[in-house]
Amino acid sequence: MTGNQLQQGETDRLSQILEAESIAVVGASKEPSKRGHQTLVDLESSGYDGEIYPVNPKYDTQIRGHEVYPSVEAIPDKVDLAFVATPAHIVPSVLEDCGAAGVAGAVVIAAGFSEVGEDGLEERVLETARNHGVRLVGPNIQGIANFHTGMNLLGGYDLPKGNLALLSQSGNVALEFGSHAAGLPEVGFSVNVGIGNETDLQFHEYLPYLDQAAHTDAIVLYVDGMSDGRRFLREARKRVADTPIVAVKGGVTEAGQKSAASHTGSLAGEGAVVDAAYRQAGVVRAERSDEAVQIANALGKLPAARGENVAILTDGGGNATLGADAIVDAGLELPELTRETRERLRELVPDAPNLSNPVDIMGLQGEGDLSIFYECAKTIVSDPNVDSLLLTGAFGAYETYGPGDDTSDQEPDVARDIASLTEAYDVPIAVHCIYGTQGSPALTAFEEAGVPTYGSIDTAVSSLEKLVEYGTHLTSSDQKSTFRHDRSTGGRHSENVLQRKGEETGTLSEFHSRRLLADSGIGSVQFELATTPGEAIDLASAFDGPVAMKVSSPDIVHKTDAGVVALNVEGDDDVKAAYDRLVTSANAYDPNADVEGVLVTPMVEEGTEFIVGVVDDDEVGPTLMFGVGGVFVEVLDDVAFRALPVTEYDAECLLDEIDGQSFLDGARGTPGVDRDALVDLLLRISDLVEQYPEISELDLNPVFAYEDGTAIVDASITLRDTEE
Amino acid sequence: MTGNQLQQGETDRLSQILEAESIAVVGASKEPSKRGHQTLVDLESSGYDGEIYPVNPKYDTQIRGHEVYPSVEAIPDKVDLAFVATPAHIVPSVLEDCGAAGVAGAVVIAAGFSEVGEDGLEERVLETARNHGVRLVGPNIQGIANFHTGMNLLGGYDLPKGNLALLSQSGNVALEFGSHAAGLPEVGFSVNVGIGNETDLQFHEYLPYLDQAAHTDAIVLYVDGMSDGRRFLREARKRVADTPIVAVKGGVTEAGQKSAASHTGSLAGEGAVVDAAYRQAGVVRAERSDEAVQIANALGKLPAARGENVAILTDGGGNATLGADAIVDAGLELPELTRETRERLRELVPDAPNLSNPVDIMGLQGEGDLSIFYECAKTIVSDPNVDSLLLTGAFGAYETYGPGDDTSDQEPDVARDIASLTEAYDVPIAVHCIYGTQGSPALTAFEEAGVPTYGSIDTAVSSLEKLVEYGTHLTSSDQKSTFRHDRSTGGRHSENVLQRKGEETGTLSEFHSRRLLADSGIGSVQFELATTPGEAIDLASAFDGPVAMKVSSPDIVHKTDAGVVALNVEGDDDVKAAYDRLVTSANAYDPNADVEGVLVTPMVEEGTEFIVGVVDDDEVGPTLMFGVGGVFVEVLDDVAFRALPVTEYDAECLLDEIDGQSFLDGARGTPGVDRDALVDLLLRISDLVEQYPEISELDLNPVFAYEDGTAIVDASITLRDTEE
Repeated sequence: MTGNQLQQGETDRLSQILEAESIAVVGASKEPSKRGHQTLVDLESSGYDGEIYPVNPKYDTQIRGHEVYPSVEAIPDKVDLAFVATPAHIVPSVLEDCGAAGVAGAVVIAAGFSEVGEDGLEERVLETARNHGVRLVGPNIQGIANFHTGMNLLGGYDLPKGNLALLSQSGNVALEFGSHAAGLPEVGFSVNVGIGNETDLQFHEYLPYLDQAAHTDAIVLYVDGMSDGRRFLREARKRVADTPIVAVKGGVTEAGQKSAASHTGSLAGEGAVVDAAYRQAGVVRAERSDEAVQIANALGKLPAARGENVAILTDGGGNATLGADAIVDAGLELPELTRETRERLRELVPDAPNLSNPVDIMGLQGEGDLSIFYECAKTIVSDPNVDSLLLTGAFGAYETYGPGDDTSDQEPDVARDIASLTEAYDVPIAVHCIYGTQGSPALTAFEEAGVPTYGSIDTAVSSLEKLVEYGTHLTSSDQKSTFRHDRSTGGRHSENVLQRKGEETGTLSEFHSRRLLADSGIGSVQFELATTPGEAIDLASAFDGPVAMKVSSPDIVHKTDAGVVALNVEGDDDVKAAYDRLVTSANAYDPNADVEGVLVTPMVEEGTEFIVGVVDDDEVGPTLMFGVGGVFVEVLDDVAFRALPVTEYDAECLLDEIDGQSFLDGARGTPGVDRDALVDLLLRISDLVEQYPEISELDLNPVFAYEDGTAIVDASITLRDTEE
Repeated sequence: MTGNQLQQGETDRLSQILEAESIAVVGASKEPSKRGHQTLVDLESSGYDGEIYPVNPKYDTQIRGHEVYPSVEAIPDKVDLAFVATPAHIVPSVLEDCGAAGVAGAVVIAAGFSEVGEDGLEERVLETARNHGVRLVGPNIQGIANFHTGMNLLGGYDLPKGNLALLSQSGNVALEFGSHAAGLPEVGFSVNVGIGNETDLQFHEYLPYLDQAAHTDAIVLYVDGMSDGRRFLREARKRVADTPIVAVKGGVTEAGQKSAASHTGSLAGEGAVVDAAYRQAGVVRAERSDEAVQIANALGKLPAARGENVAILTDGGGNATLGADAIVDAGLELPELTRETRERLRELVPDAPNLSNPVDIMGLQGEGDLSIFYECAKTIVSDPNVDSLLLTGAFGAYETYGPGDDTSDQEPDVARDIASLTEAYDVPIAVHCIYGTQGSPALTAFEEAGVPTYGSIDTAVSSLEKLVEYGTHLTSSDQKSTFRHDRSTGGRHSENVLQRKGEETGTLSEFHSRRLLADSGIGSVQFELATTPGEAIDLASAFDGPVAMKVSSPDIVHKTDAGVVALNVEGDDDVKAAYDRLVTSANAYDPNADVEGVLVTPMVEEGTEFIVGVVDDDEVGPTLMFGVGGVFVEVLDDVAFRALPVTEYDAECLLDEIDGQSFLDGARGTPGVDRDALVDLLLRISDLVEQYPEISELDLNPVFAYEDGTAIVDASITLRDTEE
């Protein structure tokens, strides 16, 4: 089979699980308080019209009108899915039974596996599932559900039906998202899948299925920590153009990471790294869990924004002001409207308080004809300066909450007219209504017509911000997948260097780090290793001017702390004295250190200091880091990340993302640095890590950048523990 | 009358307005769509039981059963309040009428004043009100309401009744806050006052009344821009201990400021300055408008937090993880629990997934007895390491949304038991429930018993964060009001210096800036003014070592740009050459500049560079700034603010608040700087501005700080335009 066929096979398998036409409930019970009973109640009350087969060797009669079978294998008909409500230690034998019956998947809700240190049991469960051809959902989950088929396996809870798919490592968070959606008209879920410990089925495996599934406009994730974040990011990148993905990431702080580990046994990556990797793959992160559902709703319903220019239309000055503040805080722009737009608005609402952006037509709805909102909105979205529109204020609440009861029921019609503008002008519109948390027929009309509504102006603006981020990803996604070099032809020139790592540190000496770099064409500074004072004198005299001398040892990583660095050394006597002093210091610092000799390099001209590094993130894997270096490292902590490998676009983003742009552009009259050379260095480091996957960490700090070119001043490469 | 008597008089006047027992509705109308009719409907339907007098010279009959009077003066009985629904240009004559009738206050809703450039009309309205002894609420407002007396003057809208007072410069935002409260049990408003343009009654004037009013536990503000922010901050500082104040600030960005100006004609201050001034006065800022009501509810109901240690109790791992992340992101701590606490929890819930903090008892509620939540909560809040508790997860939702229907109605009782812990242990408790947006009897029980509930874990944590900030203010408020020096005895030694400001710039030359500082004992560096090359030579030789020479001119502010600075000058020839060159440069840079001469100072040793400044904020007034100086100013933009005058505590906060603590503590083995000397400098600058209120700006950049002492390297003082 080809890879595509294999994937299609797995996608079909997931259809069989998530659109199961027959379910065995293993551990079925007559006891109403038991999950094995509740599940039968739930399937009935949710209107599931597939076949239901209770399984329990202890019962020989019926439960709730269904015949009970002693085993899954004893069921005479085909079974798509087994719902396993038994205790953890029974699960392996249940999976054997499922395998014998040809069941596609088993949903295991029990906790008590790796998250509490029972790794052996979890491994046994996985092995049994694999050996018997059963895919495993869970364990340690609330359950799963398909709200369009009525397959509710959530244990007495329910979520509103709609077009968002929900994958969650927390049952509580999934229920909360359901509760958030319940307060909004026309927002709900297609499926809800508990991800749990990712023992078998992992996050990324659901994406191809969901991308082609009916009823799924966008995907919402709650992630404690992914066991294979790299594969998820690769898969997500392929899918987000058709099916946007919104992720809430738990464990972005150390305290959160500890909590996640005790919950699903997950290793959460560094918050900043995961955030950057999501952005790189086009996955939208909801920083606040209370905004996730509304952001996903917006991404599922609206076109992506073409750019960052937001116009505000309002009937209240306070909303205009808070909206303008929120838009600017989100890094978006409030553009000037064109003269034509302003003139047209002046004709429409001659007495409006404000016709620049924000457009404030306060008081003008008093005339009673709410269609003025449509006329103004249409005028604004047809302005070429406008990429999206925030409608904020009382519109949507006039007829339901306003004065009088003799108004016509005009508001929902106007809402539908306004909603039609998103398609006609390809401009996303978000509606914040001051009664948005309470709902109205007009707000329902908006949502039905594909325009999201909000009771919070902050969340409305967050949604627009994410539509801009998503739009930027879509327009740049080609550049995020085209690599400068052919990834397959990377040669390995330095096999022998890789043997030289320190036993304790796993680190190569600076000499061998530089050799590995040089063999891949990285680094312009000459370097040589002297193993005697005489060699050092010869090498130093071969370079122009003074030299830098550093002890080269895989065991001494912090060279300055160890006192094994000498700068600006010149003259044979000084070189010899420095050599002796450095080696003495090294021996004093660590008598057991393997001292290869003393690295001799020419002193290089001072440049603007940057740091280039590779870190091995628990979730994202090898990740490139770029930032402001030297003394500023500690003060600024100004670094950006991209998952490896990176494209030229990614490398440019790394430069663009640091706060200290003045270091790149040149401050106080100094010239800017050679951005192309930095981008080239980043790409070469990316290639290096592709060629040598055993590199787990790399640290070039500082890299001097000049008006022309760069120089690596210090280099350290750490290799992966081979036992891993 | 004493000041206190005067204030009591004004407080009584505000009682008369906000608890009016009789209201004249000026501009009363028979037309249902008119505000002068709607108001009569609103008063009836809100159950107002005071007297209602419609006023309209055009009607001689009754409206809705009330006799109509041709003028307010024609009403035979005492009238407390006039509600004025007439167009803007009629308002002055209505106010004359109100004055003649002895009315305490008039609520003017009409727009069309300073916010649209009609300053003349607004001034005339104010003058009329003052001349006739009528206090003015508005203009340009939605209205006002007292929900406990049924006095609804909001034009067909309503807000839920409760214990929060609401002062708003936006009618829409006030209604939105009402809508946010409507979704919460036991949350609502005592009064709602439209602040509008602050033509007469300003924000600060309501605080003494609200502080003593019944039914007000906390105050919520929406602020576009205060016309007298200084008085508000002074008044707020006196009130917040009894009545917490939560402010939503509009106009914290440039775009928002422009919008605010077109809305209420307000000048909004700099976001960072206003934020710092609120914090200094103990006013809690809600950064997101969608959190304001819930934060105010928490501050009104709960005790302040003693410290920043938060414990989490949950029944779901995802909630634990998101809660831990949010707590750390908010700058709070998740402390270790004591061994005793952990042992006691282990007895209570032996199989809990996690008994460190977060405490996760997932699955244990399955036994059916929810009182385990109370037992665990009690154990946790009695831990001396715990200052507040976040209960997060499904508690509050078990009986309403969970499986089965045979549970007892135990949850509200357990909620009341948990709520009782806040008082018993003086520890605030916030409850996040995954169904918190939808409500339940248990959540209502919490709110009734004084514990706020949340549908968003982010907002729950924001509320705890603000309870910590508020608690910190309360414990430090003494230190915020004790000044080192007696404010009344500041002498003015430099009257003549004040005459020397530049005509265009308003700025004093460096020489005169330094004289003003020196006369107040500020600055240790010697300085002299040379007006000839010969004087420069004499002065330079009188100092030890090389000197710095700078042209001193009130017209040349950017001395480096103008090329009128020479450093490290030594020797008579070099001093003479420098003098001539600098004066030539000054004349070339600005031929009309008043060049006083050349300032000569000894070169001072380089130190860690800081900036000390005074800015004149549109809302807060004179504000002290402290931050990282020198080359870091542009890169870091790391400054902190405090409204002047500052106490020693405030000055220490300025040092504590900058991000670049490593500059103060010393980085990379360098010694830390003399914090006491910096605090002393800040206090002296504060005193200087008290003594010379004509100082509008002051800029000491850089100030060198040493292990011992400081040196001012450059100084510039700008005076207020005297025509202001």
